[in-house]
Amino acid sequence: MSRALNFILAARRSEIQGLQQLESTCELVTRVSQLVHTLQRERGYSNVHLGSADDQCQQALDALTAQSKQAEMALMESLQQPDLEQTCAAEKVRLFNHIAAVIHGLEGLAGLRSAVRRRAVSAEASTLAFSRPIAALLAVVFEAADTASDPQVTRCLVALFNMMQGKELSGQERAAGVAGFIQGWFSPAMQEKLRFLAESQQRCFDTFLDFAPTDAVLAWRALQAEPWQGEIEQLRQVALRSSEQQRIPSSLHEPWFELTTTRIDAYKSIEDALTSALRSQCQYSIAEATAELDNHKALHQRLVDLENHAAGTGTRLFNIQATELDAAPAEVMGQQVNRSILDLVHEQNQRLLALHDELAVVRTSLDERKWVERAKGLLMQRHGVNEPEAYRLLQQAAMSKGERLLDIARTLVNTEKNRKRA
Amino acid sequence: MSRALNFILAARRSEIQGLQQLESTCELVTRVSQLVHTLQRERGYSNVHLGSADDQCQQALDALTAQSKQAEMALMESLQQPDLEQTCAAEKVRLFNHIAAVIHGLEGLAGLRSAVRRRAVSAEASTLAFSRPIAALLAVVFEAADTASDPQVTRCLVALFNMMQGKELSGQERAAGVAGFIQGWFSPAMQEKLRFLAESQQRCFDTFLDFAPTDAVLAWRALQAEPWQGEIEQLRQVALRSSEQQRIPSSLHEPWFELTTTRIDAYKSIEDALTSALRSQCQYSIAEATAELDNHKALHQRLVDLENHAAGTGTRLFNIQATELDAAPAEVMGQQVNRSILDLVHEQNQRLLALHDELAVVRTSLDERKWVERAKGLLMQRHGVNEPEAYRLLQQAAMSKGERLLDIARTLVNTEKNRKRA
Repeated sequence: MSRALNFILAARRSEIQGLQQLESTCELVTRVSQLVHTLQRERGYSNVHLGSADDQCQQALDALTAQSKQAEMALMESLQQPDLEQTCAAEKVRLFNHIAAVIHGLEGLAGLRSAVRRRAVSAEASTLAFSRPIAALLAVVFEAADTASDPQVTRCLVALFNMMQGKELSGQERAAGVAGFIQGWFSPAMQEKLRFLAESQQRCFDTFLDFAPTDAVLAWRALQAEPWQGEIEQLRQVALRSSEQQRIPSSLHEPWFELTTTRIDAYKSIEDALTSALRSQCQYSIAEATAELDNHKALHQRLVDLENHAAGTGTRLFNIQATELDAAPAEVMGQQVNRSILDLVHEQNQRLLALHDELAVVRTSLDERKWVERAKGLLMQRHGVNEPEAYRLLQQAAMSKGERLLDIARTLVNTEKNRKRA
Repeated sequence: MSRALNFILAARRSEIQGLQQLESTCELVTRVSQLVHTLQRERGYSNVHLGSADDQCQQALDALTAQSKQAEMALMESLQQPDLEQTCAAEKVRLFNHIAAVIHGLEGLAGLRSAVRRRAVSAEASTLAFSRPIAALLAVVFEAADTASDPQVTRCLVALFNMMQGKELSGQERAAGVAGFIQGWFSPAMQEKLRFLAESQQRCFDTFLDFAPTDAVLAWRALQAEPWQGEIEQLRQVALRSSEQQRIPSSLHEPWFELTTTRIDAYKSIEDALTSALRSQCQYSIAEATAELDNHKALHQRLVDLENHAAGTGTRLFNIQATELDAAPAEVMGQQVNRSILDLVHEQNQRLLALHDELAVVRTSLDERKWVERAKGLLMQRHGVNEPEAYRLLQQAAMSKGERLLDIARTLVNTEKNRKRA
């Protein structure tokens, strides 16, 4: 009987071990958030430097570069944590592959940084080069959310991923705005891009609100009252009304950059609230599982005592079939223990099932993202359209067929796969 | 650059590690198949002993008990393999919980075995007691199939699980038949059970055929020509035509037992073909991944050589942005290497994506099973019906609504969950 309990205890210990690994992953994700933020700032100031005639902001840029390098080192360190070493092999395969993409992008930045300082590169090319490792870093967070084994932690990670993604889109909006304002007008394509970026951010923040813990939601709501929200919206309207004929003052790029930078920094404070919630949630789940393990251990001790007692008195214990089937006189203690073991196995099974269901629900939002991204990529490749256009095509198909975006995207990807195979 | 490649190599190594863990799981599953088989034989002969007046078959029964204990020890041994120790924490939680249920059931057998020998237990109670650990063992195989990371291995495991499940249903059919033949007639409920067991076996074997490797399929087809197939079918028809008024010779339980035992042993030979295919498939996948790793290592060496050469000649290498953005004179070698790294990351990502998709397809059959089992349990609990009746209810709902069984079952379970929550 105590042999069965040993395995129940082992299951609990494995659960705690899994949570500890998850805690390490969350630490890694926290450092990813930090590195993404410094890279976004460096990207923004690189464009400011490229757009200005003097070297006024080069010192600030150098400081940001130093911060990026520091954040990169911190990230690399946390990849060598022992808990992360024990991570599931399948998870590590994907994680390491994304990290390879991150490093490849980061290594390319050395040459870029010197080119930026010499103004030997365009703002678009610079933005693109910075955006590559950022996209790979976001993929790391997505991966962490998609493989976390605790529903509450998964909720936090999904919220964090969406906040980071929204913030990255917000950074792209800043860059697109700066380019248009400096030019003095926005082409229809640029305006469409601005609209697409605003809508995409909204979708991210809606999902963030669905999954974020209360504190982060409250912090988010407080941001909505900030004056820069309205000011950014006003500038956006100015941009959307401009045209080659109706030009706007190019000096507007400065307030736009200031305001959208304030916004990005504010989003970072939400990210910080989320990473701190993530840490608490991991610790809470570990404490809870450890308390359960202690309960089980106490039961284990009681079992051993009972077994010793039974050996002393010659009572046959721990034999469910013998008692049930022989209908022998009640062996009360033995039956109680038996009931406890069965209850424990059953309860553990039910809990794992409920956990699995909960995780499946939270992961649905990630699933939708996966399929929509793949479908967009496919449309962009096949019809030579850009991202906003690809998204519109999917949206229109969903509307006209009255189906969910997820289903439209999935059907498209699967049809294409079958077509390729045929 | 070689830092990025280090992570690509690490990803490959993790993949190989994952396959080695899978190989251990497959070894475990092979031993589970062995233990299930000896328990099924012991269960069958226990019923023969309980049904006979003399102790003629007790020696055979003792031999089977010894085999069961040996198979149990072999299973426990393989739980301590180092590779299995490194298994993903989440997988271990479920595995250990199922093993706890197995052990709990097995420990109950000690008392049962002595009760059987004293004929102090009914055949039904004995069958039930043996069936508990068998069900838990089958859950271990299901779990292995549901968490395997290699699509080909998963296909083998799904085929094996269905063969084992079909064989277990076949064992239940044997017991149900023996009980009816000894009684001299089959009640309508017993006949319905026979029909349900035959249909359920057919479903299992259909799924087996969908996923089994060619050798196992051919071995299966060869079995269809065996004379016992027709003879079992004839006896089944006799059973289904009998009634309290139209009795049949009770001596028919002997050929029925012999024939269905031959059938079970034949199914075991298919299981053996599957476990051996499983082993080969694991080894093949490991060899393939190792060869890929060697390719990458060769590339790594080439990179190091290039870097050294570059350092010697002062060429700036490995700097994709610098070359692309500065539009500097072609640094041919560096660009080639860069292309290789990008290709590798991209190729690895595409491969992981394809793997994920393939796994999702193979796991669909497991998913259906999960939901249908849960829905059946719910109906049995809520309406006090037995398993065949619960299955018929689901089947009828699917037919009348024109939906898949999976969708009917999932909706039912989710509705119940929401009802409970409300």
